[in-house]
Amino acid sequence: MSERPQTPLLDQIQRPSDLHSLSDEQLIHVAHELRAETISAVSETGGHLGAGLGVVELTVALHAVFDTPRDKLIWDVSHQCYPHKILTERRDRIRTLRQKDGLSGFTKRSESPYDPFGAAHSSTSISAALGFKVAADLGGDAGDAIAVIGDGAMSAGMAYEAMNNAGHLGKRLFVILNDNEMSIAPPVGALSSYLSRLYAEEPFQDLKSAAKGAVSLLPEPFREGAKRAKDLLKGMAVGGTLFEALGFSYLGPIDGHDLHQLLPVLRTVKSRAHGPVLIHVLTKKGKGYAPAEQARDKGHATAKFDVVTGKQKKTPSNAPSYTSVFAKGLLAEAAGDPKICAVTAAMPDGTGLNLFAERYPSRCFDVGIAEQHGVTFSAALAAGGMRPFCAMYSTFLQRGYDQVVHDVAIQGLPVRFAIDRAGLVGADGATHAGSFDTAFLSNLPGMVVMAAADEAELMHMVATAAAHDSGPIAFRYPRGEGVGVELPERGTPLEIGKGRIISEGSGVALLSFGTRMEEVRKAAEALSARGITPTIADARFAKPLDREMILDLAATHEALITIEEGAIGGFGSHVAQLLAEEGVFDTGLKYRSMVLPDMFIDHSAPSDMYATACLNAEQIEAKVLDTLGVSSITSARA
Amino acid sequence: MSERPQTPLLDQIQRPSDLHSLSDEQLIHVAHELRAETISAVSETGGHLGAGLGVVELTVALHAVFDTPRDKLIWDVSHQCYPHKILTERRDRIRTLRQKDGLSGFTKRSESPYDPFGAAHSSTSISAALGFKVAADLGGDAGDAIAVIGDGAMSAGMAYEAMNNAGHLGKRLFVILNDNEMSIAPPVGALSSYLSRLYAEEPFQDLKSAAKGAVSLLPEPFREGAKRAKDLLKGMAVGGTLFEALGFSYLGPIDGHDLHQLLPVLRTVKSRAHGPVLIHVLTKKGKGYAPAEQARDKGHATAKFDVVTGKQKKTPSNAPSYTSVFAKGLLAEAAGDPKICAVTAAMPDGTGLNLFAERYPSRCFDVGIAEQHGVTFSAALAAGGMRPFCAMYSTFLQRGYDQVVHDVAIQGLPVRFAIDRAGLVGADGATHAGSFDTAFLSNLPGMVVMAAADEAELMHMVATAAAHDSGPIAFRYPRGEGVGVELPERGTPLEIGKGRIISEGSGVALLSFGTRMEEVRKAAEALSARGITPTIADARFAKPLDREMILDLAATHEALITIEEGAIGGFGSHVAQLLAEEGVFDTGLKYRSMVLPDMFIDHSAPSDMYATACLNAEQIEAKVLDTLGVSSITSARA
Repeated sequence: MSERPQTPLLDQIQRPSDLHSLSDEQLIHVAHELRAETISAVSETGGHLGAGLGVVELTVALHAVFDTPRDKLIWDVSHQCYPHKILTERRDRIRTLRQKDGLSGFTKRSESPYDPFGAAHSSTSISAALGFKVAADLGGDAGDAIAVIGDGAMSAGMAYEAMNNAGHLGKRLFVILNDNEMSIAPPVGALSSYLSRLYAEEPFQDLKSAAKGAVSLLPEPFREGAKRAKDLLKGMAVGGTLFEALGFSYLGPIDGHDLHQLLPVLRTVKSRAHGPVLIHVLTKKGKGYAPAEQARDKGHATAKFDVVTGKQKKTPSNAPSYTSVFAKGLLAEAAGDPKICAVTAAMPDGTGLNLFAERYPSRCFDVGIAEQHGVTFSAALAAGGMRPFCAMYSTFLQRGYDQVVHDVAIQGLPVRFAIDRAGLVGADGATHAGSFDTAFLSNLPGMVVMAAADEAELMHMVATAAAHDSGPIAFRYPRGEGVGVELPERGTPLEIGKGRIISEGSGVALLSFGTRMEEVRKAAEALSARGITPTIADARFAKPLDREMILDLAATHEALITIEEGAIGGFGSHVAQLLAEEGVFDTGLKYRSMVLPDMFIDHSAPSDMYATACLNAEQIEAKVLDTLGVSSITSARA
Repeated sequence: MSERPQTPLLDQIQRPSDLHSLSDEQLIHVAHELRAETISAVSETGGHLGAGLGVVELTVALHAVFDTPRDKLIWDVSHQCYPHKILTERRDRIRTLRQKDGLSGFTKRSESPYDPFGAAHSSTSISAALGFKVAADLGGDAGDAIAVIGDGAMSAGMAYEAMNNAGHLGKRLFVILNDNEMSIAPPVGALSSYLSRLYAEEPFQDLKSAAKGAVSLLPEPFREGAKRAKDLLKGMAVGGTLFEALGFSYLGPIDGHDLHQLLPVLRTVKSRAHGPVLIHVLTKKGKGYAPAEQARDKGHATAKFDVVTGKQKKTPSNAPSYTSVFAKGLLAEAAGDPKICAVTAAMPDGTGLNLFAERYPSRCFDVGIAEQHGVTFSAALAAGGMRPFCAMYSTFLQRGYDQVVHDVAIQGLPVRFAIDRAGLVGADGATHAGSFDTAFLSNLPGMVVMAAADEAELMHMVATAAAHDSGPIAFRYPRGEGVGVELPERGTPLEIGKGRIISEGSGVALLSFGTRMEEVRKAAEALSARGITPTIADARFAKPLDREMILDLAATHEALITIEEGAIGGFGSHVAQLLAEEGVFDTGLKYRSMVLPDMFIDHSAPSDMYATACLNAEQIEAKVLDTLGVSSITSARA
């Protein structure tokens, strides 16, 4: 472990209000120390580093100027909140970030009053800030509302909807556009080019006398063209920004690492603003830590690392990640099929589509943080004769749910949904859990829904999806590594709606959907020591169900237990419906459905989260024993 | 029935390509006749009138200039598509609009090759057009792609996401912004004001020589300032529009009822455009039919009517609509509680919140077509200490699903979701069905989910929601009228998670969730003639379930049947999970769950749609008989 940095001034900051009495020069020192502390903490915990380093000065400035927690400071996505947490009475726990029972890597209402609105998905902050402001005006909690949102997040439709509403309501509201030209992946979209043009030619130029709107916010000395106004404001120089079209006053761009710019601008808008103001701040992701600044992803997310060298301490993998297997499978399919194309919503690396984009740049589309558009765009690609793979994390696909229903399912268009991060995901916690997709997809008429039991199965499911032209099809797979099975060079299409028996047993049948299969196997092994030999089956399909296989399992076993990494309403519910309709329950069947429990599970190691969810091998074993009426202490043989 | 209009020129148009050989003057005549035919048809069928009348000239111009169906013409929302249907080989069936087995009131892929992409929810058209264009460039179906989108729909985030992506890709693409300042309700939001400013001062002004972008699209005579250029183009006069910021060339505004403007502009962009072009067209909803032009909603949706007088032929109601009962209940709660506020996404009339807005204008927020923002805005209102009712149609709440999960449920914020149009909705068909909300809400931890059995129950549920401060709560109710029960002045809060027994019987228990209760009662009546007296229970809650009541019903009856107006994964699935976990199935229970079937059900009368869904009284009766093993021919008594 590296030595901890010296932070004499930061050590005196117990809460943000302590910043109010410091001079600007002292605040600059606080920022230096806060940066060092952030690097030091993340070197021990791993986590999102680059985003936090980019907002160190902004964090100090906001807390120095505004009166948190009375004023509501809302960090969009909020993976940049580590410096904020250090300043807001959580420094003593900052080295528990993303650990079990430790601080969340995101803002969280239950964690601190300084986190008025939690986040983890992007582009919610303007809506939230507006809600707080309106509530305050209606007699709810008083205070100003400030949203800090990145340029990537600003490209999402939700941010636009919120700006449109805020501009209409005209309430005092502060939106800090944290423009680092780098969200998780390099930015895409016309907005990004537009923002660049806003400062490309004459960054930090003089205030134009033509500026309307913004100028009225400025203190008199600024308006008179005082020296300090120089380099601070661009105002209306470009002739009316997109933000002004939406009813905001626009200030900027300003240098987000220069407290001599940030502090006076924030103080000014705080004292003068009446309506909504957008402050365009330029920052560098990873700022002030060379290894992050030099990294391709600007230190976006990191394992534990050595502070001096920046070298990450990763444990070597035993098997390829599901994400990389998906990419491999897709490349194999695309090699012979020019109709295969792919869509990602700002997650080229996370979904593995970066590999596809390298090989087939003209067939890969990163639409930005825009799941709604991404899904419908995919639907039209399919309608236009292509074979689109729409690759999204389960939790983000929620953003495009209506489009899945309205544009894909109702029209029966063959969009292939590659659903990564299905099930519990570990350190990113409840907000990133892929819990609901099986349920919300399986009840859509005409949808085919698969889950891979292992990485070879995933290859086959990619092939199945590629070959399935008659309607929409989805396949889900988890975060993390496979189980180490041998991979084919290319998958073999599965028969739609057919599961497989893994091993024949008796008494109890374990019917697994997805990668709990490994735990099911372990449970079966433990049970065999008790003389119980479960039949193990891999459902492969939540829709259409393998009716024949399932009814046969029900007919030939005393008990049938389904296991899945998803919430109620999904695979198990479809099995129950089948069994009920077929009258199987009429005469009795020990049927159980193991699903994610009715709780949001906090961040921890995935296996620990699954223990909380009661979906690990021991719990499957216990469920079998309980269902069969065998005490888990007495073995069945005794 | 009024006499049909004389349409000699229109009668000669068999398909859109027939328009290509007509002169501009003849096309003007076609437009006149098309308007008359549209009015005549809708007078017989009812339906969306105003929107179609607003685009008669645009429809003619687009089909005259472009080569449909090779060129993909995509109508956003598509309730304005009746004139399009008349021109595209469906005139012979236009008087079956929205009737059973008749034409859909929306575009529909399965209906015609001239409908390349169906729609009914708003703001999908730009994504779709872009998908078609990209597919064409990748070797899929060839042709241009044209999206026609209203100013209201343009305020949705999805449209912005699509523009941002289209501007980035830079492909040739046509977006017609049909700006009628009137979507369904009067427009809200900053974008609307912005669009007004674009033409407020000097509508149809001369082309400015400063204009870049747009000017390069123009033919030489135009560029040289020929007479006809006058009144056609505004170009860059405002100094860079929002659309140009997103990478589009902007042309307009032009008069959408003047074919002498529409035709040359469309011909020009068709022959010259390389990248994405936005053509800003001003139209009047209801244009050319005085009763529609004069109506507050510009003839948005109408019953059958008399063409001469415009008088609608509505059948009188016997009971208030659920929508109006919700409004009444909310007003009753809000009278004594200043913390109650309400949010609608562009549906003030449809949700009944117009009444709330009249009484409490400062507490009612129409956020525009922006469900994502609307849900998160509601979450922050709750976090800020208010009691927000977020009133949306079930099908549109799908647009805000991620926000329900991420911002409301995970944070446990007490947003009250008033879910209108639950279940099947009639003439609006499959795209508007509220089928999935019970499933996608009931598996969210901490969510309370209710459905009203009748309009008095709805009053109680509004009161229950108002009183429920500990977390999110939702209640659903259908389109249409109540059953005529007496209404209290104000509802009485229900105990959370408690159902009620309607009548005690034996043998079979019918456990209803929602307004199928009336059919359940009818079924029970019919069964009593056969000597079967079912117990009838009203679950009220899908979550939390009334475990005690349900387990008691299971224990005391041979059969238990759930009935709901929703897809699998919802109420019945939660009941099945409870019964499984409690071991009720171990020893046998005739359990059945009646849910919406695995199909999208086309428009028809609601009762007919429910017959298709097998959820009417006769089918409930048949299910009971089948479950009990009683022949439906032989009575149980015999």
